[in-house]
Amino acid sequence: MIIILKSGVSDEQIEHVIRRIEDMGLRTHLSRGTYRTIIGVIGDEARLQDAPLGAIPGVAEVIPVLPPYKLASREAHPESSVVDVAGVKIGGGYLGMIAGPCAVEGHERLDQIAGAIKAAGANLLRGGAFKPRTSPYAYQGMGEEGLKILRDVGDKHGMPVVTEVMDPRYVDLVERYADMIQIGARNMQNFSLLTEVGRTKKPVLLKRGMSATVVDLLMSAEYILSQGNPNVVLCERGIKSFDTSARNLFDVAAVPTTKGLSHLPIIVDPSHATGRPDLIPACALAGVAAGADGVHIEVHNCPEQAMSDGPQALLPEQYAKLAATIKELAKLFNKTISALTPS
Amino acid sequence: MIIILKSGVSDEQIEHVIRRIEDMGLRTHLSRGTYRTIIGVIGDEARLQDAPLGAIPGVAEVIPVLPPYKLASREAHPESSVVDVAGVKIGGGYLGMIAGPCAVEGHERLDQIAGAIKAAGANLLRGGAFKPRTSPYAYQGMGEEGLKILRDVGDKHGMPVVTEVMDPRYVDLVERYADMIQIGARNMQNFSLLTEVGRTKKPVLLKRGMSATVVDLLMSAEYILSQGNPNVVLCERGIKSFDTSARNLFDVAAVPTTKGLSHLPIIVDPSHATGRPDLIPACALAGVAAGADGVHIEVHNCPEQAMSDGPQALLPEQYAKLAATIKELAKLFNKTISALTPS
Amino acid sequence: MIIILKSGVSDEQIEHVIRRIEDMGLRTHLSRGTYRTIIGVIGDEARLQDAPLGAIPGVAEVIPVLPPYKLASREAHPESSVVDVAGVKIGGGYLGMIAGPCAVEGHERLDQIAGAIKAAGANLLRGGAFKPRTSPYAYQGMGEEGLKILRDVGDKHGMPVVTEVMDPRYVDLVERYADMIQIGARNMQNFSLLTEVGRTKKPVLLKRGMSATVVDLLMSAEYILSQGNPNVVLCERGIKSFDTSARNLFDVAAVPTTKGLSHLPIIVDPSHATGRPDLIPACALAGVAAGADGVHIEVHNCPEQAMSDGPQALLPEQYAKLAATIKELAKLFNKTISALTPS
Amino acid sequence: MIIILKSGVSDEQIEHVIRRIEDMGLRTHLSRGTYRTIIGVIGDEARLQDAPLGAIPGVAEVIPVLPPYKLASREAHPESSVVDVAGVKIGGGYLGMIAGPCAVEGHERLDQIAGAIKAAGANLLRGGAFKPRTSPYAYQGMGEEGLKILRDVGDKHGMPVVTEVMDPRYVDLVERYADMIQIGARNMQNFSLLTEVGRTKKPVLLKRGMSATVVDLLMSAEYILSQGNPNVVLCERGIKSFDTSARNLFDVAAVPTTKGLSHLPIIVDPSHATGRPDLIPACALAGVAAGADGVHIEVHNCPEQAMSDGPQALLPEQYAKLAATIKELAKLFNKTISALTPS
Repeated sequence: MIIILKSGVSDEQIEHVIRRIEDMGLRTHLSRGTYRTIIGVIGDEARLQDAPLGAIPGVAEVIPVLPPYKLASREAHPESSVVDVAGVKIGGGYLGMIAGPCAVEGHERLDQIAGAIKAAGANLLRGGAFKPRTSPYAYQGMGEEGLKILRDVGDKHGMPVVTEVMDPRYVDLVERYADMIQIGARNMQNFSLLTEVGRTKKPVLLKRGMSATVVDLLMSAEYILSQGNPNVVLCERGIKSFDTSARNLFDVAAVPTTKGLSHLPIIVDPSHATGRPDLIPACALAGVAAGADGVHIEVHNCPEQAMSDGPQALLPEQYAKLAATIKELAKLFNKTISALTPS
Repeated sequence: MIIILKSGVSDEQIEHVIRRIEDMGLRTHLSRGTYRTIIGVIGDEARLQDAPLGAIPGVAEVIPVLPPYKLASREAHPESSVVDVAGVKIGGGYLGMIAGPCAVEGHERLDQIAGAIKAAGANLLRGGAFKPRTSPYAYQGMGEEGLKILRDVGDKHGMPVVTEVMDPRYVDLVERYADMIQIGARNMQNFSLLTEVGRTKKPVLLKRGMSATVVDLLMSAEYILSQGNPNVVLCERGIKSFDTSARNLFDVAAVPTTKGLSHLPIIVDPSHATGRPDLIPACALAGVAAGADGVHIEVHNCPEQAMSDGPQALLPEQYAKLAATIKELAKLFNKTISALTPS
Repeated sequence: MIIILKSGVSDEQIEHVIRRIEDMGLRTHLSRGTYRTIIGVIGDEARLQDAPLGAIPGVAEVIPVLPPYKLASREAHPESSVVDVAGVKIGGGYLGMIAGPCAVEGHERLDQIAGAIKAAGANLLRGGAFKPRTSPYAYQGMGEEGLKILRDVGDKHGMPVVTEVMDPRYVDLVERYADMIQIGARNMQNFSLLTEVGRTKKPVLLKRGMSATVVDLLMSAEYILSQGNPNVVLCERGIKSFDTSARNLFDVAAVPTTKGLSHLPIIVDPSHATGRPDLIPACALAGVAAGADGVHIEVHNCPEQAMSDGPQALLPEQYAKLAATIKELAKLFNKTISALTPS
Repeated sequence: MIIILKSGVSDEQIEHVIRRIEDMGLRTHLSRGTYRTIIGVIGDEARLQDAPLGAIPGVAEVIPVLPPYKLASREAHPESSVVDVAGVKIGGGYLGMIAGPCAVEGHERLDQIAGAIKAAGANLLRGGAFKPRTSPYAYQGMGEEGLKILRDVGDKHGMPVVTEVMDPRYVDLVERYADMIQIGARNMQNFSLLTEVGRTKKPVLLKRGMSATVVDLLMSAEYILSQGNPNVVLCERGIKSFDTSARNLFDVAAVPTTKGLSHLPIIVDPSHATGRPDLIPACALAGVAAGADGVHIEVHNCPEQAMSDGPQALLPEQYAKLAATIKELAKLFNKTISALTPS
């Protein structure tokens, strides 16, 4: 940690800062420059992470040197992690192909969609039973009934299933049905919920918040990891921007940025990132070319009747075409797509 | 609602769109322009709010005419609402003066701070018992013990108290101790939590999320209102921006924007909006001049020992100076500050 | 164009709006809905583009139906344009490989770099003679001397050259030396400059401004096209964002968005979009996978001695490795890279 | 300047960094921490401003300690500057009241508007003769004819005049007619233009670019100051944001932020910052309460016939009401408004 002092700081103030740091069991190294005096902190910086050093009189700026996430950092774990979702691997050379409708709407519809996407190459089935909707008057999902249908259809097709949980009171319930638990973008900093899923044994798909930096995302992953659950997959799904031509701004550079900082797998979700079927294929391919460990796509066989987010769904035939190109890219970049047992 | 069709739309597609809308019990009005055909929808637009009209082939764009929030809208309730927090009024000409430390850290400290800010003119005491912290390793608050201290100190000084709840499982607990329940920025779209506080009888202080538009904020208020709790006070506390000279970007225009759209009171929180004591007074005054119904300020008597957010706290004497100027502005703009019984 | 009137608009006001529009030679179509009255405008919307209809009493919102750019729009020119830069084609299936140092620093250095990047697969040489620098104290470029060196080295290696112009007074000078004229991001809305390059006969590389929407970019292209110069290549080079982990935010979705709206080629510049050599290769590949018509990369053989932007340059060997993968992607996506005569 | 080295940096690399810095005539101070080695640079940091230290192998981050603007910084000039525009003072306790139409449209109209705003309290007349328009098909201004009218009307009413220049070739022309030269937001980083107005003797009104940080704005001011023109007034006029409820986001905190960093006056322009007459008064008052040195407002007596930006203009009577409240605020904050000779 480096502490830059204000110009004109008094010797007394410098003394006070040094004493505060040394009281916390660390050593200091004073450097008087032409314009500014700087204090380098030597020792375990983590002890200071929570100390309000910036509030000490005379301090201009506090610059941490270590990342505030430890378990998520690549320094702590140089090799890329592989997360195993009931046999389907994501990360470390494995590409996850997650697809399915926004919401579980009924057994027959989900069965049709699952059959189509599995044939196209998907290896993980998604579907929401609890839907976070901006409007209290909008469709909120089927609840436990939806979880049962998802489990059933997943089992029938031999596809592991992923579904979202929004409320810490339902984590146990969702854990019983799902192979992977999703935390949505709006809950990325719902710390109670993160703590609760960190106590489960199921892999977690953690979506980036719409105004979260990559570091914020890693801090939220740290909440889950610090509870003992090492199986976190990150997901870039678009952030806020002034250009409203798409629903969000797809930050493809978040993929290599995250890979530099962390060992955790990161996938892309161009469906939520753009909200526009005409942009989804190009962004999905961009994500894979940038090194993403998987692609998450919403697919519906009748978007105009979808209970949620219909306008952004791909049709099964559009997904099949996209998945075929993803497979070619995967080959070019030496990525493996975990195979399922044919249904 | 106006539906703009794609250029080159077929008559069959137009027919299909019209049928879908009429099946939902609404009438349509077709208008063929030089370049585009447009369908006006006549009747209760709310019935269509959840329908994926944008996914129907031939539809280019769907433009709603009514705001998607009803109870929060000024059209539904032309007069500005006044929210009464245990005798302290906010809105409709009343200015709330909320102040206190970021976190409740102990009885003595809170008592000192409460005494000082009350003397300066604050009429509502804030203090966190559950703290939403970006890092799992940071101080998380005193929990119920903190709530007790807050209640005690509030009662001693005759100040109503406001504190944050982060988890739907703790809403009952917080409701027992607090006069006003705060929903923090990171939970603005935690819909389970919004629903739960909507079921309480206590006024709610709803903070704007860091990437929420004003409309998003009103939609979240609608969640609370739709559960039967009419006492919602909105709070502008800074949004994300590319300019990182302050912690967030204080969106003072959100005050008149919100007042145009909604009857709900809106206050400003320059402490979180800027995170910099040198900017807080100017932004607080700007907020009042722009028409805000109150000011929320973090105050600590020893910022360098604060357990949370020390570097952004004002000292009691800085707060006193600011509060004196706010009172002059209030006079200029004919605003009333609810008086407390002297302690 | 659709004009939505305010609720409570008077008949007199409606009459006035209609008269204003009909006075401009257009017809109207009135539609009274349950909540709002709407006026559809029939006829050549372009006549109204400049009229302040939003200022007429009673008007709530004015929604244009046609894009405000005509020459740049895909509706006006359905086939993708191919821009020919002294024999090197960009767009319509051709991938431009632009590379070179940020600034021309001397003959020998540029010669070395040009030799290396040509061997790696570049087919257009870039280098700045006039540098737009944030600081007045920073290196401002070699001026005409730099242009001469660029021309010379380009000729020696048989590579067409592209260089930036910042000032309308230097357009003639730059046109004499360059095969393609670049307009930098900071000048994307320098309308005098756009008009001036629109009068030249040379292809223009138009970079997206840091806070320009895709539509803003197309409006700036329209300035050039409307002067009679049809050879415009757009360039995505990163926009402003709250996440400062990279210099800018690489908006890869701008590639398919632009291609949907316009026939003009669009390339990507991951060097300026990220400013980080560790992110450039991933973003370059993402751009090509998303359908970009070319890749613009800064290369320097001794970044620590570069006069400008050294920290973001790739080394020649890094470029060679990246270019090899780009060629594989090009093959996968059936793109052609115009060949140069071997030097 | 502080140079943070990468973890695992070799002694040879450290040596190389130190040599590079010492070769530039500066001294270094090495500090080996537990996790990172840091090099403090002692001496005139400005010598390094242009050196690509970040490109040297082993360097992780370069943190400058001094601001890159010197003449604009408050360290260099602790007292607030007062800029005198033909007798009207701005800054250092003086509040400039700039008002007028977006564009000069004719003598009679400008004369009417000038009479009305002067009566209301404006002391500087604005009006555009060269208009930067997003569309090449939009009204571009009256040119020199407009400048003549502006000069004439200003003289008649005894009001100094301010008008925009967009092209370095017209700086001489504009300087002949104007008392203050405006650089618009889109040209804030048009460095040729900044250099050219820096060579004039007239005060400059420099508007903040839509994606410029406060530091970027000060760097652009530095261009003008470094050419010998010390009379620069900054102007906050809204930046880009994801919330599109107003045209731009009015960054009122930029006022105190700038005042902390620089001695230059800063005014606010709520007309361009919001583009909405219903928000302009609240934002103007917010700006003054936050400490702005002036207010820039667009006023038109018939917005629906305005040649440019009609929908955002205030009517003269709206301006008069606002100006009256601004005067009360000025009194409260001890600000003086330079008086004009009555016409």
